[in-house]
Amino acid sequence: MSNNKIERLKQVVRNIPDFPIEGIQFKDVTPLFQFSENLKDLTDVLSSLYKDKGITKVVGIESRGFIMGPILALNLDAGFVPIRKPGKLPAETIEENYEKEYGFDTIQIHKDSLSADDVVLIHDDLLATGGTMHAAYNLVKRMGVKKIYINFIIELELLKGRSLFPDDVEIETLLKYDI
Amino acid sequence: MSNNKIERLKQVVRNIPDFPIEGIQFKDVTPLFQFSENLKDLTDVLSSLYKDKGITKVVGIESRGFIMGPILALNLDAGFVPIRKPGKLPAETIEENYEKEYGFDTIQIHKDSLSADDVVLIHDDLLATGGTMHAAYNLVKRMGVKKIYINFIIELELLKGRSLFPDDVEIETLLKYDI
Repeated sequence: MSNNKIERLKQVVRNIPDFPIEGIQFKDVTPLFQFSENLKDLTDVLSSLYKDKGITKVVGIESRGFIMGPILALNLDAGFVPIRKPGKLPAETIEENYEKEYGFDTIQIHKDSLSADDVVLIHDDLLATGGTMHAAYNLVKRMGVKKIYINFIIELELLKGRSLFPDDVEIETLLKYDI
Repeated sequence: MSNNKIERLKQVVRNIPDFPIEGIQFKDVTPLFQFSENLKDLTDVLSSLYKDKGITKVVGIESRGFIMGPILALNLDAGFVPIRKPGKLPAETIEENYEKEYGFDTIQIHKDSLSADDVVLIHDDLLATGGTMHAAYNLVKRMGVKKIYINFIIELELLKGRSLFPDDVEIETLLKYDI
């Protein structure tokens, strides 16, 4: 039944050619949220992956990780913690710099947002080359939490983003594309 | 009971002095999401405001409007539609330009995301001078929807953001500050 839902959700993701630049086939996730039946099914299948993991905090990466991250937190009786671009979080932060295709980028998290007792699920919408999530993983790891899980809605498998992470990190992705 | 929850949530919002610039007392909403009991209470009181309104779409404004917007959508059996900064939404968009304190800004929405049958709740975290929400309201109005409600978690009453909107628009805010 869950597999039927996943297949149906995969049909809903839109392919946008040449966005943001020529030659890229962009996966548009907005129809997954736009229709209430899709949002419900997506919520059900994502939540069911983590029901028995004892997650205490869901960390979402700005901006698209803010959409399903808080829903996952609510469903798992956890809190939600944002990772944001520099200058957006008002209290004391720690940050991580990382390399992107063109140049460098930085992400930040509130210093008092996670503790040693936390079991953390880091969520974002799409796993491509994995650079941003890898930086998020390092950031959360530096905070000394008990365990880290990683989740994406979509995985572009040929870009091998998974290879950035240690083998013992559980990475779950819902909709896999062989591109 | 709901009033007790609201009072408790108000205690949870953090005051950050001199952010983002000297002299501003910034209201940090992140503790409302960070602890599961706060996230649950916030979800309950926000959702209860709109239970019987027949909302079909919740529109959230990037980025902090993405946190509670999708939760509200799920609880109200509605879909979620993002309003984003330029160049972020991949399909065809319509946009609205508006004046900010220093210069101009632009927001966009997917052209096919709302229709004439929709009853729309536009959500963001904080009502200050109201410029961004006013632009969002104009954008959604141009799409010819049936009715528009507006919601914020926090209202800074002395900034009189409400005065930008027509009298017949229902604007609900949860935590009011007399500043």
